[in-house]
Amino acid sequence: MRLSRFYLPILRENPKEAEIVSHRLMLRAGMVRQMSAGIYAWLPLGHMVLRKIEQIVREEQARAGAVELLMPTLQSADLWRESGRYDGYGKEMLRIQDRHERDMLYGPTNEEMITDIVRRDIKSYKDLPFTLYHIQWKFRDEIRPRFGVMRGREFLMKDAYSFDLTEDDARKSYQKQFVAYLRTFGRMGLKAIPMRADTGPIGGDLSHEFIILAETGESEVFCHKDLVDLPIPPEDTDFDGDLSPIMEERTSLYAATDEIHDAQRFEAEVPEDKRLSARGIEVGHIFYFGTKYSDPMNAVVQGPDGKEVQLQCGSYGVGVSRLLGAIIEASHDDNGIIWPEAVAPFKVGLINLKSGDADTDAACEDVYGKLTGAGVEVLYDDRDERAGGKFATMDLIGLPWQLVIGPRGLKSGVVELKNRATGEKEELSLDAALSKLIG
Amino acid sequence: MRLSRFYLPILRENPKEAEIVSHRLMLRAGMVRQMSAGIYAWLPLGHMVLRKIEQIVREEQARAGAVELLMPTLQSADLWRESGRYDGYGKEMLRIQDRHERDMLYGPTNEEMITDIVRRDIKSYKDLPFTLYHIQWKFRDEIRPRFGVMRGREFLMKDAYSFDLTEDDARKSYQKQFVAYLRTFGRMGLKAIPMRADTGPIGGDLSHEFIILAETGESEVFCHKDLVDLPIPPEDTDFDGDLSPIMEERTSLYAATDEIHDAQRFEAEVPEDKRLSARGIEVGHIFYFGTKYSDPMNAVVQGPDGKEVQLQCGSYGVGVSRLLGAIIEASHDDNGIIWPEAVAPFKVGLINLKSGDADTDAACEDVYGKLTGAGVEVLYDDRDERAGGKFATMDLIGLPWQLVIGPRGLKSGVVELKNRATGEKEELSLDAALSKLIG
Repeated sequence: MRLSRFYLPILRENPKEAEIVSHRLMLRAGMVRQMSAGIYAWLPLGHMVLRKIEQIVREEQARAGAVELLMPTLQSADLWRESGRYDGYGKEMLRIQDRHERDMLYGPTNEEMITDIVRRDIKSYKDLPFTLYHIQWKFRDEIRPRFGVMRGREFLMKDAYSFDLTEDDARKSYQKQFVAYLRTFGRMGLKAIPMRADTGPIGGDLSHEFIILAETGESEVFCHKDLVDLPIPPEDTDFDGDLSPIMEERTSLYAATDEIHDAQRFEAEVPEDKRLSARGIEVGHIFYFGTKYSDPMNAVVQGPDGKEVQLQCGSYGVGVSRLLGAIIEASHDDNGIIWPEAVAPFKVGLINLKSGDADTDAACEDVYGKLTGAGVEVLYDDRDERAGGKFATMDLIGLPWQLVIGPRGLKSGVVELKNRATGEKEELSLDAALSKLIG
Repeated sequence: MRLSRFYLPILRENPKEAEIVSHRLMLRAGMVRQMSAGIYAWLPLGHMVLRKIEQIVREEQARAGAVELLMPTLQSADLWRESGRYDGYGKEMLRIQDRHERDMLYGPTNEEMITDIVRRDIKSYKDLPFTLYHIQWKFRDEIRPRFGVMRGREFLMKDAYSFDLTEDDARKSYQKQFVAYLRTFGRMGLKAIPMRADTGPIGGDLSHEFIILAETGESEVFCHKDLVDLPIPPEDTDFDGDLSPIMEERTSLYAATDEIHDAQRFEAEVPEDKRLSARGIEVGHIFYFGTKYSDPMNAVVQGPDGKEVQLQCGSYGVGVSRLLGAIIEASHDDNGIIWPEAVAPFKVGLINLKSGDADTDAACEDVYGKLTGAGVEVLYDDRDERAGGKFATMDLIGLPWQLVIGPRGLKSGVVELKNRATGEKEELSLDAALSKLIG
């Protein structure tokens, strides 16, 4: 992508409304703009990262055997009356009346709707088990939206729902999502720690939050230090095999959010030098809740013995749009964002130090063609701007590599390659730079 | 994808509520389920086609130089008050109040919002021209939603918006989208004819609808027959070059929707044997409307002479979710859907005629591995079902190729390959079948 043809409105000043660094940087880097309180437009740069994150989520859901569908944003209130959650959900639910005065709502989550979908078509235990998920916009009418996309009102969530015949099977489905989450967040360069958590309005008796440690986190968390640096499960993990050892390794050491933290247990179980108490950002939350919805909504199948059995269910959420903020909170410096390569909007920022200079333009065009031809995503700053401004923009938007080409270097046959994360700069031949980036 | 692990609830009976064939087939093939009037959940098979269509739209938008962003579904009423459309839009606009009693709405289109985004950041003519687009859910509270996803209330649309300094430039941006649309629909296997159209509530003085001919079309259309089979512009069309000849070829012959049809002109301009009057489905609609929104919303840039200039704008819509219905209306037979390969959810349906038979299972597994390994999308019917049911399911869901493997054929070293569109069946060796499908 040529910057002259992209849409990247950089802000020089720190916007006043932004209280935390991720919000500030997302505004300054031209990634989002607030359209109403807690409602954001995703400008091209932000949208690209959103799609990268979505894609990782999607790949890991598929690996775990979950199948994607897409439910609508608006729901009928009747479904929520059936489950009994309509009245209790409070003002965070955005209630709507259509032109025929039917009660609707903008879905904050989809347990009721997916249960309705499944109960219509699934009649036999032979059709089980399965896990369905979608990535769709949700709405929670927060009284005081803040922190940019971290606590917005309209937000993008991946929510998966598992359907099983028995509690044992349901726990296996839970394990699959648990392991998928470790891989999902790990691939994004995040250290997400699963912690025992309160089940809140979703309900159920088994639940984990996936927490990223960050000073700006909204909740206090407590865990054993050894949990922080555990490796992520490998790509060839057999999701049809026994996942208990992975889950065991992650859940046998103490880790809990403040709602259910037990200080006495923490001190008894964790040696003092291993006790970590910190602030964290929730990026995922998973629940096993059995028949909490299948019971009132009569979602049943015929079991092997011919008798009706209520479906055993769980739900599994990832805060997709929130993850952008969380990743930036975990990965930035004074000059801007530092994208982990897996979610970077482009891998390389190509800086033309003297746009208009025939040789430099030709060299840049050549490199741009070769990199994009090799499938490397490049943002080429081809604008007629001062070098200082170009460097500052590239640092701000945080692409993993900056390739700098100018007339002086070209004369001696070298270009400069900068690693955004480490700040290391290297002078090398154009070919060496290309082969490093194409890999 | 193994069918045993997919979610494909086929309906044997024709659902009563479906009045047209695409709606009937989408329900029967387990592609969608209605959740409220005019609001659908996209089950996995339908969702896959939706994403294929999205991807073609996206690729052709990029080719035409448009840049993707994503605006939220909910909008502030204030923006629409600024443009003057809030009161006039009528009951099709879904009006919402949030917990603070602020007036919001579920966006039916985004002219106001994109104008607001652009006016905040774009200050100079040097930043022009650009075209931004998004693919997002919209809501129109139709009084009588019908025909399934063809006339739903919550629907997926691609809407692009162009911003230029002069009327001449704006007409060039219009041409780019015009040509992009020819390619977009052409790649989906559709013959879409651009027709002069009324500008309706969007406004402006230049507008074309892209119409697919189909008996179930909602509007009557009139055109010169030669327009039906024009070839689509080639992949290497230079969108920075002069696109007038392409546009000229498509617009010099008579073509109009009934709202602006002029019978006298039609008869004067089109020889009798070339007159086509038919029913059509609108799948795209493009508008040039100049300063209709930039004027009341004060979206201006500084021009080359230092003076303020109002932006020249157009908008360009594709009915992404509606296209599924339109494609099926245009491509089906008595047994089910016939997907054009470019939008098919899978390219190949692999039918195991005797699941449980060791040799047949092994052969199917081998073929399945080879095809998916080569990047071919396969739906493998590995279920323990009767052959007749498997054939009927494959015909219904309409994958381009069916590869049938059974014990008898294996003994003589052959499998059967069926082309869904032509119905042609061919017995050939496994290797020959593979090389045909891998291509």
